[in-house]
Amino acid sequence: MTAFDHPVLSAWVDDAETGMRMGWDAELAAMLRFEIALAATQSEMGLIPADAADALRRDLDGFRPDMDGLRRGTARDGVVVPALIAQMREATGAAGRHLHHGATSQDVIDTALMLCLADLLPRFAERLGDLEDRLAALSDRWGDRPLMAVTRMRDALPITVADRIAAWSSGVRVAREQVSRVRAEDMAVQLAGPVGTLGRFGDDGPPLRAALAARLDLRDPGGAWHTERGRLCRVGSALSVCCAALGKIGADIGSMAQDGTDAVQLDGGASSSMAHKVNPVDAELLIALALHAAAQNGVLGAAALHGSERSGPAWTLEWLALPPLVRTTGGALRATERLLAAIRRMGPRAPD
Amino acid sequence: MTAFDHPVLSAWVDDAETGMRMGWDAELAAMLRFEIALAATQSEMGLIPADAADALRRDLDGFRPDMDGLRRGTARDGVVVPALIAQMREATGAAGRHLHHGATSQDVIDTALMLCLADLLPRFAERLGDLEDRLAALSDRWGDRPLMAVTRMRDALPITVADRIAAWSSGVRVAREQVSRVRAEDMAVQLAGPVGTLGRFGDDGPPLRAALAARLDLRDPGGAWHTERGRLCRVGSALSVCCAALGKIGADIGSMAQDGTDAVQLDGGASSSMAHKVNPVDAELLIALALHAAAQNGVLGAAALHGSERSGPAWTLEWLALPPLVRTTGGALRATERLLAAIRRMGPRAPD
Amino acid sequence: MTAFDHPVLSAWVDDAETGMRMGWDAELAAMLRFEIALAATQSEMGLIPADAADALRRDLDGFRPDMDGLRRGTARDGVVVPALIAQMREATGAAGRHLHHGATSQDVIDTALMLCLADLLPRFAERLGDLEDRLAALSDRWGDRPLMAVTRMRDALPITVADRIAAWSSGVRVAREQVSRVRAEDMAVQLAGPVGTLGRFGDDGPPLRAALAARLDLRDPGGAWHTERGRLCRVGSALSVCCAALGKIGADIGSMAQDGTDAVQLDGGASSSMAHKVNPVDAELLIALALHAAAQNGVLGAAALHGSERSGPAWTLEWLALPPLVRTTGGALRATERLLAAIRRMGPRAPD
Amino acid sequence: MTAFDHPVLSAWVDDAETGMRMGWDAELAAMLRFEIALAATQSEMGLIPADAADALRRDLDGFRPDMDGLRRGTARDGVVVPALIAQMREATGAAGRHLHHGATSQDVIDTALMLCLADLLPRFAERLGDLEDRLAALSDRWGDRPLMAVTRMRDALPITVADRIAAWSSGVRVAREQVSRVRAEDMAVQLAGPVGTLGRFGDDGPPLRAALAARLDLRDPGGAWHTERGRLCRVGSALSVCCAALGKIGADIGSMAQDGTDAVQLDGGASSSMAHKVNPVDAELLIALALHAAAQNGVLGAAALHGSERSGPAWTLEWLALPPLVRTTGGALRATERLLAAIRRMGPRAPD
Repeated sequence: MTAFDHPVLSAWVDDAETGMRMGWDAELAAMLRFEIALAATQSEMGLIPADAADALRRDLDGFRPDMDGLRRGTARDGVVVPALIAQMREATGAAGRHLHHGATSQDVIDTALMLCLADLLPRFAERLGDLEDRLAALSDRWGDRPLMAVTRMRDALPITVADRIAAWSSGVRVAREQVSRVRAEDMAVQLAGPVGTLGRFGDDGPPLRAALAARLDLRDPGGAWHTERGRLCRVGSALSVCCAALGKIGADIGSMAQDGTDAVQLDGGASSSMAHKVNPVDAELLIALALHAAAQNGVLGAAALHGSERSGPAWTLEWLALPPLVRTTGGALRATERLLAAIRRMGPRAPD
Repeated sequence: MTAFDHPVLSAWVDDAETGMRMGWDAELAAMLRFEIALAATQSEMGLIPADAADALRRDLDGFRPDMDGLRRGTARDGVVVPALIAQMREATGAAGRHLHHGATSQDVIDTALMLCLADLLPRFAERLGDLEDRLAALSDRWGDRPLMAVTRMRDALPITVADRIAAWSSGVRVAREQVSRVRAEDMAVQLAGPVGTLGRFGDDGPPLRAALAARLDLRDPGGAWHTERGRLCRVGSALSVCCAALGKIGADIGSMAQDGTDAVQLDGGASSSMAHKVNPVDAELLIALALHAAAQNGVLGAAALHGSERSGPAWTLEWLALPPLVRTTGGALRATERLLAAIRRMGPRAPD
Repeated sequence: MTAFDHPVLSAWVDDAETGMRMGWDAELAAMLRFEIALAATQSEMGLIPADAADALRRDLDGFRPDMDGLRRGTARDGVVVPALIAQMREATGAAGRHLHHGATSQDVIDTALMLCLADLLPRFAERLGDLEDRLAALSDRWGDRPLMAVTRMRDALPITVADRIAAWSSGVRVAREQVSRVRAEDMAVQLAGPVGTLGRFGDDGPPLRAALAARLDLRDPGGAWHTERGRLCRVGSALSVCCAALGKIGADIGSMAQDGTDAVQLDGGASSSMAHKVNPVDAELLIALALHAAAQNGVLGAAALHGSERSGPAWTLEWLALPPLVRTTGGALRATERLLAAIRRMGPRAPD
Repeated sequence: MTAFDHPVLSAWVDDAETGMRMGWDAELAAMLRFEIALAATQSEMGLIPADAADALRRDLDGFRPDMDGLRRGTARDGVVVPALIAQMREATGAAGRHLHHGATSQDVIDTALMLCLADLLPRFAERLGDLEDRLAALSDRWGDRPLMAVTRMRDALPITVADRIAAWSSGVRVAREQVSRVRAEDMAVQLAGPVGTLGRFGDDGPPLRAALAARLDLRDPGGAWHTERGRLCRVGSALSVCCAALGKIGADIGSMAQDGTDAVQLDGGASSSMAHKVNPVDAELLIALALHAAAQNGVLGAAALHGSERSGPAWTLEWLALPPLVRTTGGALRATERLLAAIRRMGPRAPD
């Protein structure tokens, strides 16, 4: 089991909301939404019969795929779409042949990913905003207490708790802005057809893509991004920045909780062998998640190297790298929420 | 969902056997086995009452943990062991207080990991050996056919199919030897107590550890390896080497399957938009898995940097990195098995 | 020798201009510029005597450091600044004590890095723009020739050379926009003092930082970014995206140059053993550089995890990761320039 | 400038001996040694005229290449060998045509790398052994002093300085054993010819390779390893393990030096703004180097994925990844040597 799907460990490292918004149900819903929206747009533009979209929508209402079939198909095709489309066509009547018209598997998968991210990233931004509020409240409560600044692992000069929290808030704000920006700028529809040229539609191609983008509340990328994955790199970078910002909070609270420093008091984790200890395990987790996120972002960067009109290896590597990065970020948000909520005191034990 | 636990994608990228041998049931069984074996050894050595081990074994027969409790405990403690031990003690009578005697959470988790790996790695080695057999059979069948060697992306000089397969076999053999070696040399018990000194046991400590190792069919490491993770780095390196060797087979078969080369014919995957195509998706997958494995091995190396007597961040990072690396390797084995089985022809379409 | 500073290999993998703009002479000049500008701004604001800045500028005109002294100081202090400031003070008269007033080592190093990047990134953007022009010219010359699209390692449907070049151009344009954006938005002064609070200056701190930023043509970050390295992550992401875009050109040209495809003809590299071969070595290099850049960007992300008010390990890791990433990007630009210039034909050997 | 070749920073992060043993002069000497040994072996076996090797050795005595020519050749060929061989042939008389007989560029480069590593790794092992001696001496001097064990960032139970040093020694010993093992087992000659089959030599091929290996004091790999890079992965893993072990010493000493702990006293680095501070900069450096090494080892693993008979991208990526990893290890050794030498006290300030 990877940690995020582990029946026990996930309770600590994972975030349920993130798992849900990026999970299979969300993916499937997004793929169906793409196909329905594509047909609706094509019906409106006269590219498929005017009543085909309605028929498809009606026929596919309540569609539940045969999972075994999807698994068999994915193992054969390296992507779920051919099997899914086949099942969808079976679930529809005559209109089925208008489904997925002119689209390719990557159009479905990439757009569905964008739809899921477009749903998730605003929640990440909101939760980062909530963390800023909590940090502000902590600063209000404890900010004027003295703290010894530490630079290069040594005590430096006196600062206040507010000074240190200000650095955390700055990091969280930057992360929120980055996440919001990629949501606003980089969530684009993919509609480019088998070889990226949207060729079947001739002059209708660009307006079709634009109209589909509008319908799905995504951006019109102005062309194919089958092999141009910069937008995913920007998502990855924002998430990595986010995990680093939260990781710093963890690193600092972990240090502040050390017995020799005792500049924070936490509720927290137990030891199986030393009953007196309260381990700052969420602080530790945040450090681990930040390092993990950075590495997965590196893999995502490698996955951005595509060849020809569609690179199976690169695209697959992206599927291996992005979900853990997203889950890591969700887990870091959750751990930070827990950690800040566990703070009982900041600054010296006996206030000045 | 990460790809390995994804309800659909896992059918392609994952290997069920690997998931099972490294899954929660296996982990739990290994943790129970550690605790029972520890008690048995301690009973024999007179460190706990002579009948305590039998009582514990009897009381824990059929023990099934309360998963919600384990999840709550793990979220609180950053490790499942305190909650698990508490549940185990509840399931036992008076002997319960002799459970986990002198051990720490990391002793349980690390040893359980070793037990799972010790179970899995021989299977990896066997499957690599089977692949060598399949390669030998392919070489027997098609080996004398001509092939154009390719160096630095250009045709070089004529070789034979046997020459290319020999390079694959060499890689698989090296991988098998590496995997076998880490199984033989690096699977060690962990028993070092709260701060790595096995302190509670005095002079009985080293013989206790040695006897426990023997009972669990693991090596006696001669000391603590709470913070010395070289053995896991060696496991990681072997798995990364394995994925690279299998990735080469994928890369080569993918190239050979290209239309301009046509030096292999495969059964295989479909396109949602181009019915005529057979995509070498397992070949592509192997390339992606090799790059993924290498990166996860890099993360595992970062996780080897521990501080003090137990580093929560480093240990947690290891939990994030190692399972995907193991699953990636399992997936690569499975993909190679499928890919080699899908070969219908090697060498030119019309044999010389 | 690392490849970028290797006396022979650098001729292939490195870009001289990048090495120069990020080299020691540029760094030293930027550090001097920071100190002079800081003094000038402080003189204007009355924070140091009005004539101190002029005296410092005069005394430091033509300043050349004692390199052995800098090396000894850096080995002792983990950063060059204390030794450099001491040498600069020796080179100045009474005004020397006003040098570096209220600043800390990280202010100097970080701002100097920003100044170097602010000088380099526009050149990267220009060169990317030039590559777009070259691609446009190639498309004009060869674009209407037929090409077989390749998806998932198999021939897909006919496209044109122009279609494939359009994908390259799209990637290069996106890279150029990213690089330009980080230049425009993320190049900020660092002035925060020993513990990030700019404390010595009280209410004068923020206007001092703003005025210094203006004088250096950098942005005012509105606070310390000693431990908030998001801007460097964005630089890293832009460079990684850039290398991926150029890497795709390499991967595609390498594939097109294959003997079975022969869709491009290149001038190029020789083999020591096979005189008939022309190896597309710059195409290969671009693939390697893209993978390398992605990994270094991952390291840069790990370096973004800071602790306390200044993390020596994180900052040092940044120094290890960023320069190779920058050099890799320079090398990729240079290799692409060479590769596109080496194209003699695109599309089939005998034009349709 | 990358840090290892930086005129100032290298004084801190680099190790001069490592730079020298892996530097250009060493590389060139190793390539010449390969060619001379190849000719000598071929003369003995009658594969080239009996006097050719002597003539070549004589003619090449004192050979110094034209560096500009090598740079031009490398930029053209993606490898130095064709230009180097051409220059060597110009420097020799009639025997020149027997130079490099049946070998390919990769044979020269790979074997030269092995020769350099075979020279360097024993020094690494020796220096690790010296560190073990220093640790033993520190343990003798300070080992009985009390120390508070720290697990999961919290004080755990009392141990002694000797206990902590024992963990360091264990890591260094394991690293030394790993380094020694790869030196003993993995340093192999490469001689496989243009396409890895050693084809030109027929039945003489294997004995030629074996004799050459013996002459160069390398192992006979029993075949080509042009595309099977497991031995380099094992080198990389050993170096990564080494850096982690040394990084732990750095992490621990950095923590022990903290003001709230004060369990070690060091000579050390200054701050440009806070004269009272002594920064444990070598401790910090060791942490950074360990994380850097782990990541470069990940890149090396990616470089192990070769395609066809010689993959230019993979081979080039190896050249980008391995030297920084080696240099990082050298730097970590040097930093540990400095750090241990700087220890003035371990344990509490006032001894018990």
